[in-house]
Amino acid sequence: MVKSRQWLLANKATDLPTYSSENPNFKLTETDLPDPKDDELLVKPIYLSNDPAQRGWISTEADPHRLYVPPVEEGEPMRARGLCEVIESKSSSHSKGDVVFANCGWSEYFVVPAAQCQPAPDLGGGMSRTLYLSAFGTTAMTAYFGLTEVANITKDDIVVISGAAGATGSMCVQIAKKLVGCKRVIGIAGSDSKCKWVEKLGADVCLNYKSSSFAEDFRKETPAPDGFANVYFDNVGGEILDLVMTRMARFGRIAACGAIANYNTTSDKATGLKNWFEVIQMRLQIKGFIVLDYIKDWPKATDVFKKMLSEGKLEIEGGEHLVETKFEDIPKTWLLLFDGSNQGKLITALK
Amino acid sequence: MVKSRQWLLANKATDLPTYSSENPNFKLTETDLPDPKDDELLVKPIYLSNDPAQRGWISTEADPHRLYVPPVEEGEPMRARGLCEVIESKSSSHSKGDVVFANCGWSEYFVVPAAQCQPAPDLGGGMSRTLYLSAFGTTAMTAYFGLTEVANITKDDIVVISGAAGATGSMCVQIAKKLVGCKRVIGIAGSDSKCKWVEKLGADVCLNYKSSSFAEDFRKETPAPDGFANVYFDNVGGEILDLVMTRMARFGRIAACGAIANYNTTSDKATGLKNWFEVIQMRLQIKGFIVLDYIKDWPKATDVFKKMLSEGKLEIEGGEHLVETKFEDIPKTWLLLFDGSNQGKLITALK
Repeated sequence: MVKSRQWLLANKATDLPTYSSENPNFKLTETDLPDPKDDELLVKPIYLSNDPAQRGWISTEADPHRLYVPPVEEGEPMRARGLCEVIESKSSSHSKGDVVFANCGWSEYFVVPAAQCQPAPDLGGGMSRTLYLSAFGTTAMTAYFGLTEVANITKDDIVVISGAAGATGSMCVQIAKKLVGCKRVIGIAGSDSKCKWVEKLGADVCLNYKSSSFAEDFRKETPAPDGFANVYFDNVGGEILDLVMTRMARFGRIAACGAIANYNTTSDKATGLKNWFEVIQMRLQIKGFIVLDYIKDWPKATDVFKKMLSEGKLEIEGGEHLVETKFEDIPKTWLLLFDGSNQGKLITALK
Repeated sequence: MVKSRQWLLANKATDLPTYSSENPNFKLTETDLPDPKDDELLVKPIYLSNDPAQRGWISTEADPHRLYVPPVEEGEPMRARGLCEVIESKSSSHSKGDVVFANCGWSEYFVVPAAQCQPAPDLGGGMSRTLYLSAFGTTAMTAYFGLTEVANITKDDIVVISGAAGATGSMCVQIAKKLVGCKRVIGIAGSDSKCKWVEKLGADVCLNYKSSSFAEDFRKETPAPDGFANVYFDNVGGEILDLVMTRMARFGRIAACGAIANYNTTSDKATGLKNWFEVIQMRLQIKGFIVLDYIKDWPKATDVFKKMLSEGKLEIEGGEHLVETKFEDIPKTWLLLFDGSNQGKLITALK
């Protein structure tokens, strides 16, 4: 039996989650973990993945009939993906000391079924294992399958990518420009320095949506009719989606990946999408997707990324926002996803 | 030279159009029409088609780079499709006295290119030529291609149809239930008597969206998870779309056909769509479409409808709302599209 501190979901969330208010969403506790049974592992998370999607799992509106994973219930440890060290193994597939990729949680230790853990061997060449969470991680898979399978981008497309400095968006930019060679890639991000980085990654231009001239800038970069966008990879929803709708080309495709603009609010208070008629008049095609639907093809994408990296087509510098974090500060680091400060993949490195 | 009264677009519209206020959208004038030139016809409209889509053509927001037809400009006759008698022909393809289907307008007489007119010969069997505007008309084509080509309905689908008592929706119900044999067809309409008619057309159930219990009724008719809708044929947009989004099944398909809920307003005042996250979590696929994109296949659809009619699978009773109209009252009849009184295809029969 191992004692483990855990961050539990104390209350489902309606707005920006808290961990230190009077009625917090997350609560730090200590618990006795059961010993691992046959085919289970006792693991210790080293690096935690921080993802906007986690906000959806703890929403008061999360509906088990509709969410793509079970919601986290009140009283359960907050769920997260992470790179973990195997402390004790009751399985022949993993040994003590191995590093595995697991659905763990905000817990010092965790007991997990061995079959649900993927090996995360040393990458060699001095590369950090954190790449399993960034350039080779779930968000990278999201970028790859969203662009190639959902939006079916080709080199003839003008592609707009929002959240372009985020973990998913920054991979999108590189895939669109350096792998597929799209005609034009327009990024959207939240600061001038992020935009500079996105342009360094390959975007033809990146616009700061916090600029007062953003809407006008965006219209200038998508001139009618030949400059209209063929593809929009949408990480944010909200007002930016509403604007991009008005600059999509006929038969344009939208890959709906995320809607962070409205994650920290209930749907009744969400910024409503007003330009729906564009869907009709421009015959837009919108597809929502979840990267888990493509899980069997993930190894294929990893090979693609490794090849890009070896050919100098994948920039990893700046792609990780690694935050050394004490266990008691896990929610604080996670909340950096929502304050506009994050660039690339936000990773919690547990001290 | 022929004198013709005409209803011109005096002002583009921001809200519900008027024709008799101080600053009306439509204005009655008289003009001298030029004589038809070679390959042109002088025609006299007998029956005018009334379509919600016409509202989009006169919007202040209509953008020639984005609308699927050129907008109607101020000073031009209001555009409409209609069945017309050929008064004078300068073409070998049509003779004086023929009845043709033409893009004419709110004009007593009109000069049109003969090549753009389709013959509308007597249908025989005592059938009215108005069927060319209703059961065999553009709205019927919209229903057919929207369901079969855009939403790809199959007999395994639960299909929701809004505006189900309208010209398009009432055809949708019959195609889904009596042609394709969908598992379940749920109509949505605006009065109890319309709902009764829609159920007579084949819907398993039709719900009145003006009922105070509508949202609750709709949830009951689409129980989680097996009763969620696989297909939504959307004629209305707005709040009904927002509700239906929350009851779509995983990988559900939405054919975005119309958005009448917001036609009589500018987009800044539109009811915004709040449940966008459903697109992502349920992996919805939304396709906007315009029936003109399928024009080469229209004859195929007409054959289908004729066969349905001969087999007793197409109910035409109640499917036409024929309004005998003096020329000076054309806008008044057209406005019946927007006051909730209309059932089936609204046709102006010119006196």
